[in-house]
Amino acid sequence: MAVQTVESTTNPTVDLGPAAALSCRECGHRVPLGPVFACEECFGPLEIAYDFSAYETEELRKKIESGPANIWRYAPLLPVPADVADKPNINPGWTKLVKADNLARELGVTGGLYVKDDSGNPTHSFKDRVVAQAIEAARAFGFTTLSCSSTGNLAGAVGAAAARAGFRSCVFIPHDLEQGKVVMAAIYGGDLVGIEGNYDDVNRFCSELIGDPAGEGWGFVNVNLRPYYAEGSKTLAYEICEQLGWRLPDQIVVPIASGSQLTKIDKGLKELIQLGLVEDKPYKIFGAQAEGCSPVSVAFKEGHDVVRPQKPDTIAKSLAIGNPADGPYVLDIARRTAGAVEDVTDDQIVDAIKLLARTEGIFAETAGGVTVGVTRKLIENGVLDPTKTTVVLNTGDGLKTLDAVAGTGLTATIRPNLDSFREAGLA
Amino acid sequence: MAVQTVESTTNPTVDLGPAAALSCRECGHRVPLGPVFACEECFGPLEIAYDFSAYETEELRKKIESGPANIWRYAPLLPVPADVADKPNINPGWTKLVKADNLARELGVTGGLYVKDDSGNPTHSFKDRVVAQAIEAARAFGFTTLSCSSTGNLAGAVGAAAARAGFRSCVFIPHDLEQGKVVMAAIYGGDLVGIEGNYDDVNRFCSELIGDPAGEGWGFVNVNLRPYYAEGSKTLAYEICEQLGWRLPDQIVVPIASGSQLTKIDKGLKELIQLGLVEDKPYKIFGAQAEGCSPVSVAFKEGHDVVRPQKPDTIAKSLAIGNPADGPYVLDIARRTAGAVEDVTDDQIVDAIKLLARTEGIFAETAGGVTVGVTRKLIENGVLDPTKTTVVLNTGDGLKTLDAVAGTGLTATIRPNLDSFREAGLA
Repeated sequence: MAVQTVESTTNPTVDLGPAAALSCRECGHRVPLGPVFACEECFGPLEIAYDFSAYETEELRKKIESGPANIWRYAPLLPVPADVADKPNINPGWTKLVKADNLARELGVTGGLYVKDDSGNPTHSFKDRVVAQAIEAARAFGFTTLSCSSTGNLAGAVGAAAARAGFRSCVFIPHDLEQGKVVMAAIYGGDLVGIEGNYDDVNRFCSELIGDPAGEGWGFVNVNLRPYYAEGSKTLAYEICEQLGWRLPDQIVVPIASGSQLTKIDKGLKELIQLGLVEDKPYKIFGAQAEGCSPVSVAFKEGHDVVRPQKPDTIAKSLAIGNPADGPYVLDIARRTAGAVEDVTDDQIVDAIKLLARTEGIFAETAGGVTVGVTRKLIENGVLDPTKTTVVLNTGDGLKTLDAVAGTGLTATIRPNLDSFREAGLA
Repeated sequence: MAVQTVESTTNPTVDLGPAAALSCRECGHRVPLGPVFACEECFGPLEIAYDFSAYETEELRKKIESGPANIWRYAPLLPVPADVADKPNINPGWTKLVKADNLARELGVTGGLYVKDDSGNPTHSFKDRVVAQAIEAARAFGFTTLSCSSTGNLAGAVGAAAARAGFRSCVFIPHDLEQGKVVMAAIYGGDLVGIEGNYDDVNRFCSELIGDPAGEGWGFVNVNLRPYYAEGSKTLAYEICEQLGWRLPDQIVVPIASGSQLTKIDKGLKELIQLGLVEDKPYKIFGAQAEGCSPVSVAFKEGHDVVRPQKPDTIAKSLAIGNPADGPYVLDIARRTAGAVEDVTDDQIVDAIKLLARTEGIFAETAGGVTVGVTRKLIENGVLDPTKTTVVLNTGDGLKTLDAVAGTGLTATIRPNLDSFREAGLA
């Protein structure tokens, strides 16, 4: 399939802006832009290689600053055509970077603590950022159906983006997902197919479908469009720095599922330095996992370069990837930047969700409980420096993981009169 | 209580920016700024009177355009201090105005159709806009506890905003609300009190509490802070016009609960005209209700000036106010602007939620189903002009009213193999 696809995309009408080619992360082999994801030489992952050579720093900065209040302000740095903002897309991004002074006081952070709150995206998770890129790649390659395997956030993001952009969508999920997640994924009117099996079975089926005539013309956002899709996470790095006044944070705490987001945030920060948009100074990247799915954290602590797969068992379901594809790259980055990878228990995740809600009024998904919980643990252990500027990612919305905090409820139940109110001791 | 409160607020240290006084909507009687809501002369509702006399149009426009990407860009037009953006607040607003070309095609709108999507606010409803104003008024008047009666959206908005702004919160809800809404309201750590009774009982209890020593120092955002709170809805009008390039839309479709939002949108549009920020031209405001709670729609159609209360029975629970306080004002505005008030059935609401999701990738609350459904009906009936620029409000998030579309689900369930996929006929 790879060869056929590469040929079809030497077509000079493929315009994905500054994206110049696909390049193998392992061996550096380059191929033309196309819907391929694995190197034909070494099977390593392909990623986008850019041509940024024409950019002048201050011109670029001005262009970005005068751009739209969404990820397309960074179109010059993404694999999208220059007129992307005029195309129908759900336009995620430019979410709030919340100065979290109350949380900082509780955690003892004095150097400035910020929460990058991606629950403000259209379908309330960071997945909108990556799907928005995949949509533009799908347009460029002439796909008419968008697909993915998902356990929740991604299904909703693909459904919504496909609906608005005029694609058919056909999304695959385990057949026994919670009703809420099913409704969220189905409401956009695309096909939603339940697979009798677990998420691994869903994934395996999608790989089969890609190689079959039945899947022809289908863009699987996290498989054959993955090199484009993954670049969406760079926008988190761009926004954080621009929102800090074009400054690098000293420390960033990022959740790890496949590890792709963390590696792309690192890529984004490096690009900003190379382009002169921020000062070249050290930064540390910290990875956050749930103890019940901590293959990267375990490898980091044991000093290993490879990640031993785990069978996930945690409430942080959006991070529950037991065999994370980008695990080794995450280990590299954590070590190179003098960061770390840490994990927290499910109880600590719930405590951290409540802590963030009660201090900053942000109701995070379990993944946000993981990053806030890990931040607290890293400070307690002296690993994260509380005197430095620190950014913690919240990548999803608590409304989607209500079960995790289902114990939270009424302070009191009273009769509708003042005596009953006084008895409850709330005055 | 009113007299005592007015005295306490002649204090010159109360700085709420351009807010000059409270003025009775019925008799025009003016009192100093304070936590009062009813006229001491005629019991009419008090609203904010502003002093905008010092503003120069183009200077004001520039100041707004260079302001933050939230409602505080309009601080010069709101009852808040000039430095409001520096205070801890959840900073709602500047939500997307989505050009809804797919929906326009389905509805036959050729003049430009837009959805103002307030699900992008921090707690995913427009209530964040009004609560943000109440918070600043509460600060100015020295309240330390924030409260409200609520059946859902408002409870979450108050809980979140109070947490971040450093207030204690104590919110009252009917004791038998759905678990999801209880969790959402409780997660921010304030007191959440279930009242044995329905929403009317909760409301009655809150009125009792305001007059009692037990409620001293408490700001009830939708009662004694209501004049300030209500002004938050003006920001919807400001944003729509600025996002249209400082143009008035020809037609706006607004949901009606108490009717306050619609009246304040009208107030906001009139202010923009008076300030010279938009051209002075006619606009039409349309009100949208659910048939199961349609007191204003019924009065409009029957040509009445008064609104006969109804007992609500509709899935659009966030609009289910059977005796809307601002009903008569809504009737005035709909007639003055040559608009209308219309209602749709619960089935039409569900259809409209699905229509908006499948065309634009926006998953609306039931209230959004009401406005989209009413828009469709008004076009079909020849009341709304499809050749004119039209803005439809979505004021909440579908994630909060999943029950309404619980029938939405899987297209198919298959075994994880290609044969089973082919049998399902989805290729």
